[in-house]
Amino acid sequence: MELLKQRILADGAVRPGNILKVDSFLNHQLDVALLDRMGEAFFEHFKAQNITRILTVEASGIAIAMAAGRFFGVPVVFAKKSQSKNLDGELYTAPVKSFTHGTINTIVVEKRFLTGADRVLIVDDFLATGNAQRGLLALCSQAGASVAGIGIAIEKGFQGGGDALRREGYDVYSLAIVEKMTDDSLTFRT
Amino acid sequence: MELLKQRILADGAVRPGNILKVDSFLNHQLDVALLDRMGEAFFEHFKAQNITRILTVEASGIAIAMAAGRFFGVPVVFAKKSQSKNLDGELYTAPVKSFTHGTINTIVVEKRFLTGADRVLIVDDFLATGNAQRGLLALCSQAGASVAGIGIAIEKGFQGGGDALRREGYDVYSLAIVEKMTDDSLTFRT
Repeated sequence: MELLKQRILADGAVRPGNILKVDSFLNHQLDVALLDRMGEAFFEHFKAQNITRILTVEASGIAIAMAAGRFFGVPVVFAKKSQSKNLDGELYTAPVKSFTHGTINTIVVEKRFLTGADRVLIVDDFLATGNAQRGLLALCSQAGASVAGIGIAIEKGFQGGGDALRREGYDVYSLAIVEKMTDDSLTFRT
Repeated sequence: MELLKQRILADGAVRPGNILKVDSFLNHQLDVALLDRMGEAFFEHFKAQNITRILTVEASGIAIAMAAGRFFGVPVVFAKKSQSKNLDGELYTAPVKSFTHGTINTIVVEKRFLTGADRVLIVDDFLATGNAQRGLLALCSQAGASVAGIGIAIEKGFQGGGDALRREGYDVYSLAIVEKMTDDSLTFRT
């Protein structure tokens, strides 16, 4: 998606540890108009898939999942990262190791929000090692839901998580794939 | 907002500890169409206020802040609850005690996303004791930003946080104010 790539080049910044900061428009401050175009791009790609629910994980996946949800006209569910007092139904749970924070979180979805009748589009802001996406896939598997595909804003192609999922047959659709990243240059996969 | 009140009555559930569960449409699963109408209601109330940024706190505030951001056409900023590797700019920070979880979080915003030139609308899904909103107000105060008002989806009126803020002069605009809540009844302020 050219609009997103241009924005990454204009406003993104590379930090030590393979971190790409895009917090001026994607995961601290949100550019709603850009997010809407990204949601529309997911819809164009997956619209024939009879999606019934969009699944993401808090917190920074929520904005782009919301944007996608508008186009598909289906509910958006965000997995939570910790069990709170507010989660009292029966739960699906899966462990996810955070690349950014170095911690292991349990992600949780109440069973009534993910069922065997669902055709799910998984949406997230970043895909790197694929750990978060595998956690979401595990929740879908527990629910017996079928997975139509995985829509990602920015994939770090050089970390391999996206290609591993593609080799397993998943339709991973990333709006920008960063192939190479150094302190002063950034190359997209074409 | 009648649409929201009807939805709370239809799908909300009361749990011990003054917890109102609305996770089928507001803070676990998201009803995007309803959230859009809520964002529009905030716009109708605050549209003359020359809002330049919308401020909320992760995670469940993000969806309703996104919905509002579309109508105001301004950036949405969500404060983060922990300092991550991805936050490397200068920060504003404030402590917030969580009513739901019983913990104290530090909320954080990078200084470049909140400035003395800003006219801020604070948006959140719930207002109970007002702790989260006071944390967001503290961030605005540190930045020298002016606060146009506070837009809330559901206020628990009986916990007093909203009325305390109103007495201090803040324009707190809540789409539904729950005045009384028991296991089998729920009364709105009229």
